Amino acid sequence: MDKKNFSRPLDLKQIQITDEFWQREQELVRTEVIPYQWEALNDRVPGAAPSYCMHNFRAAGRLMREKKTAGTAFAAPAYSYRGFNVLPEDPAKPDPDKFYGFVFQDTDFSKWIEAVAYTLTWHPDPELERIADEAIDVVCAAQWENGYLDTYYILSGMDRSFTNLKDHHELYCLGHLTEGAAAYYQATGKDKLLKAACRFADYAASVFGPEEGKRKGYPGHEIAEMALVRLYEVTGCENYLQLAEFFLNQRGTEPHYFIEEEKERWLYEQGEKSGAGGQDGAPESAVEEERGESAQKAGRKAAREFPARIRALNAASYAYYQAHQPVREQSEAVGHAVRAGYLYSGMADVARLTGDEAMYAACERLWNSIVKEKLYITGGVGGTSHGEAFSYPYDLPNDAAYSETCAAIALAFFARRMLQIRPDVRYADVMEQALYNTVLAGMALDGKSFFYVNPLEAVPEACRKDSRLDHVKPVRQKWFGCACCPPNLARIVSSAGAYAYTENEDTLWFHLYMGGRVTKTVRVGEENTAACAGTAGGTPRTARLTLQVETGMPWNGNVKITVCEADRTAACTLALRIPGWSGGWHADIICGGKKREAARIEDGYLYVTGSWQEGDSISLEFAMDVHMKVADPRVRENLGRAAFVRGPVTYCAEEADNGKDLHLYRVDPAGIGYTAEEKNAPDGSEGCAAPKSGSGIRVEMTDRLGHPMAVLKVPAKKLVPDGGPLYRDYAPPAEEDAVLTLIPYYAWANRGEGEMTVWLRV
Amino acid sequence: MDKKNFSRPLDLKQIQITDEFWQREQELVRTEVIPYQWEALNDRVPGAAPSYCMHNFRAAGRLMREKKTAGTAFAAPAYSYRGFNVLPEDPAKPDPDKFYGFVFQDTDFSKWIEAVAYTLTWHPDPELERIADEAIDVVCAAQWENGYLDTYYILSGMDRSFTNLKDHHELYCLGHLTEGAAAYYQATGKDKLLKAACRFADYAASVFGPEEGKRKGYPGHEIAEMALVRLYEVTGCENYLQLAEFFLNQRGTEPHYFIEEEKERWLYEQGEKSGAGGQDGAPESAVEEERGESAQKAGRKAAREFPARIRALNAASYAYYQAHQPVREQSEAVGHAVRAGYLYSGMADVARLTGDEAMYAACERLWNSIVKEKLYITGGVGGTSHGEAFSYPYDLPNDAAYSETCAAIALAFFARRMLQIRPDVRYADVMEQALYNTVLAGMALDGKSFFYVNPLEAVPEACRKDSRLDHVKPVRQKWFGCACCPPNLARIVSSAGAYAYTENEDTLWFHLYMGGRVTKTVRVGEENTAACAGTAGGTPRTARLTLQVETGMPWNGNVKITVCEADRTAACTLALRIPGWSGGWHADIICGGKKREAARIEDGYLYVTGSWQEGDSISLEFAMDVHMKVADPRVRENLGRAAFVRGPVTYCAEEADNGKDLHLYRVDPAGIGYTAEEKNAPDGSEGCAAPKSGSGIRVEMTDRLGHPMAVLKVPAKKLVPDGGPLYRDYAPPAEEDAVLTLIPYYAWANRGEGEMTVWLRV
Repeated sequence: MDKKNFSRPLDLKQIQITDEFWQREQELVRTEVIPYQWEALNDRVPGAAPSYCMHNFRAAGRLMREKKTAGTAFAAPAYSYRGFNVLPEDPAKPDPDKFYGFVFQDTDFSKWIEAVAYTLTWHPDPELERIADEAIDVVCAAQWENGYLDTYYILSGMDRSFTNLKDHHELYCLGHLTEGAAAYYQATGKDKLLKAACRFADYAASVFGPEEGKRKGYPGHEIAEMALVRLYEVTGCENYLQLAEFFLNQRGTEPHYFIEEEKERWLYEQGEKSGAGGQDGAPESAVEEERGESAQKAGRKAAREFPARIRALNAASYAYYQAHQPVREQSEAVGHAVRAGYLYSGMADVARLTGDEAMYAACERLWNSIVKEKLYITGGVGGTSHGEAFSYPYDLPNDAAYSETCAAIALAFFARRMLQIRPDVRYADVMEQALYNTVLAGMALDGKSFFYVNPLEAVPEACRKDSRLDHVKPVRQKWFGCACCPPNLARIVSSAGAYAYTENEDTLWFHLYMGGRVTKTVRVGEENTAACAGTAGGTPRTARLTLQVETGMPWNGNVKITVCEADRTAACTLALRIPGWSGGWHADIICGGKKREAARIEDGYLYVTGSWQEGDSISLEFAMDVHMKVADPRVRENLGRAAFVRGPVTYCAEEADNGKDLHLYRVDPAGIGYTAEEKNAPDGSEGCAAPKSGSGIRVEMTDRLGHPMAVLKVPAKKLVPDGGPLYRDYAPPAEEDAVLTLIPYYAWANRGEGEMTVWLRV
Repeated sequence: MDKKNFSRPLDLKQIQITDEFWQREQELVRTEVIPYQWEALNDRVPGAAPSYCMHNFRAAGRLMREKKTAGTAFAAPAYSYRGFNVLPEDPAKPDPDKFYGFVFQDTDFSKWIEAVAYTLTWHPDPELERIADEAIDVVCAAQWENGYLDTYYILSGMDRSFTNLKDHHELYCLGHLTEGAAAYYQATGKDKLLKAACRFADYAASVFGPEEGKRKGYPGHEIAEMALVRLYEVTGCENYLQLAEFFLNQRGTEPHYFIEEEKERWLYEQGEKSGAGGQDGAPESAVEEERGESAQKAGRKAAREFPARIRALNAASYAYYQAHQPVREQSEAVGHAVRAGYLYSGMADVARLTGDEAMYAACERLWNSIVKEKLYITGGVGGTSHGEAFSYPYDLPNDAAYSETCAAIALAFFARRMLQIRPDVRYADVMEQALYNTVLAGMALDGKSFFYVNPLEAVPEACRKDSRLDHVKPVRQKWFGCACCPPNLARIVSSAGAYAYTENEDTLWFHLYMGGRVTKTVRVGEENTAACAGTAGGTPRTARLTLQVETGMPWNGNVKITVCEADRTAACTLALRIPGWSGGWHADIICGGKKREAARIEDGYLYVTGSWQEGDSISLEFAMDVHMKVADPRVRENLGRAAFVRGPVTYCAEEADNGKDLHLYRVDPAGIGYTAEEKNAPDGSEGCAAPKSGSGIRVEMTDRLGHPMAVLKVPAKKLVPDGGPLYRDYAPPAEEDAVLTLIPYYAWANRGEGEMTVWLRV
């Protein structure tokens, strides 16, 4: 790691996104998703399963008031297991004092408040802020006096809190609460929720840590790691960074905490049965209870009997939690893909802030594992619905894909953090691929329905009739009981600017090109130049450099960056990504009023350093050819198939354009521009084999549901079915000429139910 | 239906199979499978899960002795639900008085005794017969005095017998017991087990039937239908045929019996809870109990409350049982594929014996549904592991195939019964395809391990790592807890002759060609000729016609049938199947010492009628070309792929011959003999497109594990992986010339673990 490359996301307040593409997406989130989500949190969406999220906070708030009033006379509810997802018998009549929903239902609020916060940075809205403040009041009122804040245990029995980190998501709730609180503080300057998050984190730090007497656990569902880093960055309090590091250091080490807590729960249950109460090793009380010798003996005997159960908890299940190995030893991305992405993001954060090279090396290995072996061409990850997880290398089924929207979001998180360590176009390319394809596919063009699972091939009949595809829906759903994807999508889209731009003292990186306005605060001193920034003498002052960005992305490769405001001394470096998909590019740079001929290029970024003045500009043209892509032949599903990519956008064929039975089509390499000569040169290099731009394939701008987009017209052949028995003697297939219409993958399933495929036969 | 076409299987005693191919398979069953199975039934196989089958019969026998001794003082066990598959905590220490295993574990014995019976017909073995007689004594001793014989309920509480036909398999046990008993009687003339089966069937007929007061139920797992027909055919007792017909008539009718019995069980449980005992509609007692008014009211109230549960039992689940429609209305083969095959077999039997044209029409529709839309090229059926069931039309996944060995056996049962109604090569072709491929693939070449599931593509890494393929094993297993496939395979292989030959008064049909000796008993009268057989005057006498069959099947298409013994008046018709796979054929017929030039051909059978004398012969030559087959393009998995078939044998490629990564191969139509000219004539007819025999593909006889077989050498191209990123720009693929070695599908997985595929890229 080289510290001079380190960067942080640009403050969202410095970014105004106004381009047609991203503004539209952000407005959908602001005007459709966030209001809908608030109704859902309050169980007011007719026909949808209630969330019970605000119900739970209100119930816990009443209990806290009761606790305060009753004082020492307060009798907390004794723990009774409620189940991972508990629903009232009559959904309309929940017991007002009980917890309902998933154990992690609190995070519905946290994700909502985070997205709200982001929108408030670029679209102040006093009414929304008022609603948010009131919701924060409700949430903060639910906090236990020691800082603990998870309504499942507050309402079901605090005596058993933090006894099932593996599956009960308390630290996941802490993580999301922290992310939401930090965002809201950054957006509004209001710190009520931030303080609540700090208190919860402080309490967690009092329970978990390397010190003797503290528990050695870590989250079953990661996110606290990256969230605690954010809390450290917002508050400057190192305890939070240390707790994040502790969670990472503990993960997957022996003795395995998930076995230890399993054993503790088992002993507790044995004790419950025998009426002996707490047992040896029960971590819920730091003070060991006095007890008779016979109870101790029983405890030891029970502990000896436990190993039979340990065997049942085999190593395979730990991989699901990325807890199968210490994190610095991990090399293959495994397990639940969202958890994995969150963990790797936290690892990258901690590696950067602590200078941990071994941690960073693990991040790099895990990144390569994903990108070289486990990534869909749509930027999605998670090949199998079993555990919503990464499958084994090159197992990337199209129809049975899981490719959860949240997993693509988590991958973008990870990519942005790798960019923060080292700006390399490899990371930005994948971040862009995830954002423009799987993440956006998660939401309908009208912002009213969502995909949880993002297949690369859908045949509605198969989705309905094939139980192996039970997880795949051919149309987006309004909401989900486990409502992770829509709010997660809301928080990343509303904070898109934080993925487009990162900065350090003297450099502003453009990772993604989004039209709008962006301001960098530059530290200026005497004789300051970006080249010798840092410890130059004199009192540092700040200057503002405001840039106007115009771009046709993702539909063409033109970008123009114009300096519209600049302090005289606004000297800094602009680092401009040269996308990996661009076959060729050209830059016209005017800096300091003069045309600049040379610039440094490193890891796919063009670095232009200078003193910028109003009217300066950088004009970029990236060639945006259509690329016909094939997969590594180890991806068995895709052998003999091709997919089409143009710029950041992956394409697909839909029934609405091409009729049923998409599998009968094959794209025609000759028609596309692969001549017979090239065909006879199988060792032809990439460059020579790629078709000339426009040769054979037509690119047409169209409008769908008020959404302009480029569609592709691809020369193809369509098999003419000839009837006959189920199995017939081979004959060269009868085919007719056809033209396939391909639309951006993110725009599929907006015209009713129908077939879709990304990969087409060649 | 035309009665003159009706036939019955030739008595196995009239058939001696001596050809290299089938004798070997039968000897494996006799010398390996049956002895192993007997050890398994008695829980004496080290390392294998105990069956508990004979344990259960012995326990029930002790209970019956106790019952006899105690007389009216006998207290039968009150019912307690034991579970669908109940195992002792310590498998080595079962409670001697309790039932263990699956609810249908009794059928382990029934299938074993059936296979034993068949082997005794062609290989008398006094020691085996002694063991069988002793086992029969144990089984018969377990029979309840009313004839009921299912040890699950006898040991767990007879008061609840026949209250869960949907899932508890009692009538399935009746069916298998009957099949085994009939076979043993036919083989040995001993009727002890047959009488026990009759008593059980008689009892079932006293409980179920159209008469008032009898229950309107039918088996959840079919087989009783076809078994009762067999019992009728063996005993001549029409009650059994009527019961079979009743079961068929009831199936899928409204009010739906499966709901009715569900409701009854629910009411019973309500009664149990309230201590009220039996309730309204409880069918376990034909005599309504007297009871107080309040109990009646409670019962009516409870009955009104039941509909909420009915809704949970939706129509979809009935399709699993083929109980979604009345059988005569069914058109699509659905649900559990073994159950379906058994049902359709019973339907065909009853249609033939009762002249039920509507039933027969349904059989024909269901047959077409299978053969046109749901059949693997290996003769397997059942595309999905979910419910071990038929999937929707054309959904025939290769790697995730279920294609249970038992389902292919059930399909052969159905085919043989359709042939018994109308001899049409369509049925025989499919029966042959099932037998030579999926059925035989179920057993290793050494007879010591078995497949339950028969995939058409196996990649060991995927089988291990992909939970969607949990049901697929890349190597055969020694035995199964649910031990249906090995014993089912044993009973069909040991009775193979009954599938090769059927007969009626004057005709002997050759459906399959197996070398050996076969004797037909011909009824002869004055002036008898086959043409005017039937009611000719005079006292009918019988004559014997013994034929020697020599054949190179399945490795070449030569068949010679020689008359080795014949009564002077042995006039009859020999009907010889012309296999559908044969592109051309030739017959030399010598009948009555003279060469016969003409013969009648109907539905793919060559009918030769005459008075046969010693030395007469029929020599047949069927062209056995290699056929490169493609699937209907609606089979999405196989588009762009081909499979190879020669005669009845379907081929596959294995890693042992071709190395890893079989998917990198594609067969080369040009190398095989499809010229460029033909390629440019996409409308070429089947005949012209098919390669000339031997053109390009070499057929080589080889020997594997002592088993001679023809392997194919197919010109192919193999992709040369070129490295590069996961997704790279298209370039015409680099390929090297290769020759694929294909082996018969039934012989795969006999050389250790490795990849296999039936369908190859073209």
